[in-house]
Amino acid sequence: MPIPFTKLVASLPAATPFVGPETLQRLSGRPFKARIGANESAFGLSPLARQAMHEALEQCAWYGDPENHDLRSALAERHAVGIDEICVDAGIDSLLGLLVRMLVSTGDPVVTSQGAYPTLNYHISGFGGEICRVPYCDDREDPVALFTMAARVSAPLVYLANPDNPMGTWHTGESLVQAFGHLPDGCVLALDEAYAEFAPPATLPPIDTRDRRVVRLRTFSKAYGMAGARIGYAIAHPDIVTGLNKIRNHFAVNRLAQAGALAALRDEGFLRQVQQQVEQGRQRLYRLAARCGLHALPSATNFVAVDLGSAQRASAMLARMADNDIFIRMPGVAPLNRCIRIGVGSAAEFAHLEPVFARELAALPALAR
Amino acid sequence: MPIPFTKLVASLPAATPFVGPETLQRLSGRPFKARIGANESAFGLSPLARQAMHEALEQCAWYGDPENHDLRSALAERHAVGIDEICVDAGIDSLLGLLVRMLVSTGDPVVTSQGAYPTLNYHISGFGGEICRVPYCDDREDPVALFTMAARVSAPLVYLANPDNPMGTWHTGESLVQAFGHLPDGCVLALDEAYAEFAPPATLPPIDTRDRRVVRLRTFSKAYGMAGARIGYAIAHPDIVTGLNKIRNHFAVNRLAQAGALAALRDEGFLRQVQQQVEQGRQRLYRLAARCGLHALPSATNFVAVDLGSAQRASAMLARMADNDIFIRMPGVAPLNRCIRIGVGSAAEFAHLEPVFARELAALPALAR
Repeated sequence: MPIPFTKLVASLPAATPFVGPETLQRLSGRPFKARIGANESAFGLSPLARQAMHEALEQCAWYGDPENHDLRSALAERHAVGIDEICVDAGIDSLLGLLVRMLVSTGDPVVTSQGAYPTLNYHISGFGGEICRVPYCDDREDPVALFTMAARVSAPLVYLANPDNPMGTWHTGESLVQAFGHLPDGCVLALDEAYAEFAPPATLPPIDTRDRRVVRLRTFSKAYGMAGARIGYAIAHPDIVTGLNKIRNHFAVNRLAQAGALAALRDEGFLRQVQQQVEQGRQRLYRLAARCGLHALPSATNFVAVDLGSAQRASAMLARMADNDIFIRMPGVAPLNRCIRIGVGSAAEFAHLEPVFARELAALPALAR
Repeated sequence: MPIPFTKLVASLPAATPFVGPETLQRLSGRPFKARIGANESAFGLSPLARQAMHEALEQCAWYGDPENHDLRSALAERHAVGIDEICVDAGIDSLLGLLVRMLVSTGDPVVTSQGAYPTLNYHISGFGGEICRVPYCDDREDPVALFTMAARVSAPLVYLANPDNPMGTWHTGESLVQAFGHLPDGCVLALDEAYAEFAPPATLPPIDTRDRRVVRLRTFSKAYGMAGARIGYAIAHPDIVTGLNKIRNHFAVNRLAQAGALAALRDEGFLRQVQQQVEQGRQRLYRLAARCGLHALPSATNFVAVDLGSAQRASAMLARMADNDIFIRMPGVAPLNRCIRIGVGSAAEFAHLEPVFARELAALPALAR
């Protein structure tokens, strides 16, 4: 007798959005010397966050506060919004799943860019929506095209990352606000700002929670170095937050992450230091590319997309990096997949990367561009 | 313009399954002196787990292994099953949500006991299923009645906790295996064994992952003292695990929890110590009830249901406990709600509880039984 899967789940592929670096290490039998493929921070936790999480170990037997009250209070103050305009959850991945579940009925289209975040697509398919893809324009997501498409297909949800992943490109807040004019009523924009802290000033539109169309998504996984702790949040109109509260797992956020995030928010000196290190790291990646005769895309994130000229060369270079114990990923679809995406590493990771990169690139067969 | 919620989400109530103790503390303005209402462990983390989690803080900037490989390996060995028969996720709450989503289409009935775990009901409603309730029988869930009902209504999913929450009662593994004869093909039993480690020998049926009908749910939240870390797992037929893998958030489990759970599994001495302390705590709660002339239900968990004779008296006693900074919960529906559910506390919590309990009970108005 078969397992009574829903029709939808029975129809889903078993494929997963990402293969983790641990899996690759198990396959190779060797640890990576540079783990710079998942846009993680090379600069770890704020000492204040580490201390808070260490102390929270004493209360690890207790569930976290299901209302995430203290953290939401601090975030509300930080962003000058109401506490009922913040929803804390176990990372943006989880929040994206909730948004899709909350807004997308079977067969509804969700608009995203062709080559944008695969986990969003995983959720869209997983809840029975239809992925509607808009091409990148000059390696940037195209807000007007995305919002116009959302209007055309009556999508309840459209996704835009600013700064963008996997290309690292960005739009100014001003140009986004202008583009919002094309965003139809009755459509929600999931504005993924995971890399907000790395972006130049004026990249982020002003926060306006009166606009029911725009949900801002933020995370402690990147600049705050807490990817392993699973904590992020949405800033949105209170009615959106109420909707999320109807379906989220109320005890999903772990107690250490709550304590760590609260402490991390208070450590502005550490954040500034990380921002500077990431800026220096981007420059170092630009220089590495330039020395090798490659174009690096200017980035507003903690990674840099480096143009290898063709998907074939990009894949080959990625394989060579893996052979040299360097974990890097690349975009999944054309034309983005002519690039590889290299994260800002630690000093040790850079020291390993730079000579290997130059050597392996030189040895790359002259594959068709 | 309204937010384009799905019809289902628009229809859901904003109510949540549980009010957290932190919320109650904020309302009263005072911290609890005894936090014994959420079945958390009073005995904290294994020192090995604490050490592993402390060390994992150094890798907190890295996402956890999305395959949970090392932990699944250890669990597979522990339970003598294949690694593809284990699904690790961020606690049983999350696994229950995945099971409902995986098996329940709009309007499908899910069978559970009247008064059983509210979070399951939250998920059933949240995914559009219909809750089909079977009464407890003599304060125990009624497996044969549950499975017979599942057959009658063609439920794709039936829920049973053994040992039970909120009553603490249990069935022998042998009687459950007999009851499985009534479990229809094409129906999955979510067998919630969150309190497995506290139960007498022979409470747990043998694990048989060849049976596609039975999913065993286990957690590190209770005996292992890791509720705040969010980690649990399912043991099931590989096809069930494949189904869960199609929809779970692959990076949902936090890296510290992975490290802590792996270390906790290895610390069998600590687990035995917790089991003994819980057994002693139950005896102490039985004695407290007896001294007060109350009946305490024999428990196979880390809490004891104490019979106050009526819902009115139980509610009144709960309120008095809260006034004395003691956090306790009680079952939500008749006839279970004549009881209050008191967790095994630490020595300090017991010292606070015992005199307060006796005094407040004596002062309770002679409410109608």
